[in-house]
Amino acid sequence: MSAHQMGSGQMGSGRIAGERERLARVALNRLGEPGEVKLTSLAAELGAVRLHDLLLGEVDPQGLRTDLGARLAALDPERELEQAARLGLRFVIPGDAEWPDQLGDLAAAGALHDRGGVPVGLWVKGPLRLDELADAVAVVGSRAATQYGADVAREIGAVVARSGRPIVSGGAFGIDIAAHRGALSADRPTVAVLACGADRVYPQAHREILEHLGRTGAVVSEAAPGCAPQRVRFLARNRLIAALSRGTVVVEAARRSGALNTANWAGRLHRVLMGVPGPVTSAGSAGVHEQIHTGAMALVTGGADVLELVGAVGECLRAEVSAPPDARDRLTTRQRQVLDAVPVGRAAGADSIARVAGLGLLEVRSALTRLRDAGLVEAAGAGWRLTALARA
Amino acid sequence: MSAHQMGSGQMGSGRIAGERERLARVALNRLGEPGEVKLTSLAAELGAVRLHDLLLGEVDPQGLRTDLGARLAALDPERELEQAARLGLRFVIPGDAEWPDQLGDLAAAGALHDRGGVPVGLWVKGPLRLDELADAVAVVGSRAATQYGADVAREIGAVVARSGRPIVSGGAFGIDIAAHRGALSADRPTVAVLACGADRVYPQAHREILEHLGRTGAVVSEAAPGCAPQRVRFLARNRLIAALSRGTVVVEAARRSGALNTANWAGRLHRVLMGVPGPVTSAGSAGVHEQIHTGAMALVTGGADVLELVGAVGECLRAEVSAPPDARDRLTTRQRQVLDAVPVGRAAGADSIARVAGLGLLEVRSALTRLRDAGLVEAAGAGWRLTALARA
Repeated sequence: MSAHQMGSGQMGSGRIAGERERLARVALNRLGEPGEVKLTSLAAELGAVRLHDLLLGEVDPQGLRTDLGARLAALDPERELEQAARLGLRFVIPGDAEWPDQLGDLAAAGALHDRGGVPVGLWVKGPLRLDELADAVAVVGSRAATQYGADVAREIGAVVARSGRPIVSGGAFGIDIAAHRGALSADRPTVAVLACGADRVYPQAHREILEHLGRTGAVVSEAAPGCAPQRVRFLARNRLIAALSRGTVVVEAARRSGALNTANWAGRLHRVLMGVPGPVTSAGSAGVHEQIHTGAMALVTGGADVLELVGAVGECLRAEVSAPPDARDRLTTRQRQVLDAVPVGRAAGADSIARVAGLGLLEVRSALTRLRDAGLVEAAGAGWRLTALARA
Repeated sequence: MSAHQMGSGQMGSGRIAGERERLARVALNRLGEPGEVKLTSLAAELGAVRLHDLLLGEVDPQGLRTDLGARLAALDPERELEQAARLGLRFVIPGDAEWPDQLGDLAAAGALHDRGGVPVGLWVKGPLRLDELADAVAVVGSRAATQYGADVAREIGAVVARSGRPIVSGGAFGIDIAAHRGALSADRPTVAVLACGADRVYPQAHREILEHLGRTGAVVSEAAPGCAPQRVRFLARNRLIAALSRGTVVVEAARRSGALNTANWAGRLHRVLMGVPGPVTSAGSAGVHEQIHTGAMALVTGGADVLELVGAVGECLRAEVSAPPDARDRLTTRQRQVLDAVPVGRAAGADSIARVAGLGLLEVRSALTRLRDAGLVEAAGAGWRLTALARA
């Protein structure tokens, strides 16, 4: 079936109508660039089949097909689907059981921006279904990551993935690939959303790991098979990373980093937006610090913090981090007053301690005995001094 | 004049009444420990002279002076003032022109806590007047600072001091002393608030710098001259560091650090509370990260951020940090669309670029010429590719 025939208006069973919709979307997707707002919003408004047929039938003042009509007529989406299937790719569209409903949030947020809107469909390779990404966490950051940044991204990838949440990132050098590797080290699936076709590899150095993701997790792209990575496609891709995930963590980002573009999308889409701090002397952390400073991002120090923030209430509470219990914690107020009155650097008599504590001598003597039993003070000559434990 | 005679009730001129007040406060201050709430609040409520006389006249069931009364009678505050003056110390009390009015905030906040309240007076050594501290910034942190932390503390000390705001800190190893050194490197005054008497040196290793502060800035203590540093005095001292300053910056603090005690006071007193992030792998930054995470502290990356946050509106705006102007910023929307459609990794023909951009070929050719003039694309064979500038 060619693109021409799709416009013939013949209605069939539900399954065939679904296929017509899919073919129309494959064609429309090939027609425009990822995230082209005019296309994505018209497809949402008119329906893909109707939009496809309208564009196909468009004529210019000379009665010839318009450029768009001519280009649509030249496409063969059925063949494209078949060829893609041979490469292990499927085209997932709204209405499919696998469609990730959270992308619907792009309808409102995207309309105001250059590259936005709900994609007309997504090319996917790999066993992980897109409807399993509702709880996913995106981990993004600088391509020119430091070793510190890569280490933290990997830790977050591993801890979050181990909790059962897929990791979403972009397949790039630096933070992206470290996050993917973290998830793989936990033997959990991870998703790369690419700016080129899902059948392609970019960057080439990541061929092996991206192929591995295509077998164990998912490689996703809005761009049609064969498409090269282009700047405009990176921008459109960033919105998908943010929209697919419940929260986005930026590990390192300089002030003009593309990762901040993803972060902005996460903010617009009311996703949880998180940032990892680093040395203030590191340019790679400056973009993150700025966003934490303004309150746009929450500060997280690792996977446990991330899980706390993206978790439903009570679902995954961050372990209360506290110092080991301290002998001081078990003292009465009086005993603590006495302990506080023992000098830091030398021994003192009970009378001097009583004066400092503002307490009676008998009371102080009794408290000193308890403090000695607790290992906090020791006798020294005629007086008392702090033990190493109390000075710790 | 001994403590006995102060109770005689003879009223003199304003100046003498002022002296009586000062002597009463010297004695009361010696009687209790720094920050003892019962004492500071009674002194505020009854007036120091009245409280002094009441305590001095107190008798127990046997008709003898109570312990407090006997201790007060044994004090000689006039002699204490004279001796202190010979050491270069003055005792500053509420009502003095030099009294820092911001300490009044401790009256409400202090009453609820173990060590609090407005001090009955402060011992001061050095030319800097305490009423010049209304705009001061406290810089505190771990004694076991890292080199990174010390470097940042010194930078903040220098930048803030250069802006005309005094630095306030303790005199401890690590962050405290680095902040002082920063202010000194800017040739500006800095203030050490000590837990021991202002005539003493703690730690000994800082003798030289503390003596220098006593000649050029100020060394301040609530503890009477000769007092040794005690744990209780450190806690009381921390409230003064927070209360004297308009804002407190914590540079490094482990989870149970004393610097967080100072930070808590700054929060209670509604001062600006700031924290410097560091590597999440550094235990010395963990306490700061936790407080930024909960929103208690604002994240600052250096002196400029601090000045922005403590400054009155418009007084000291942080310089907008932005990347250098980019050739891309001067493009029209159309030109940018065309630029975005040029592949990242290879050259492409104008027709292919037009297709990707979704624009007409003539329009794209014209835009490519402008982009070439701007140094963003270059001809390559029959096509066009991005220049190094555009790929940057």
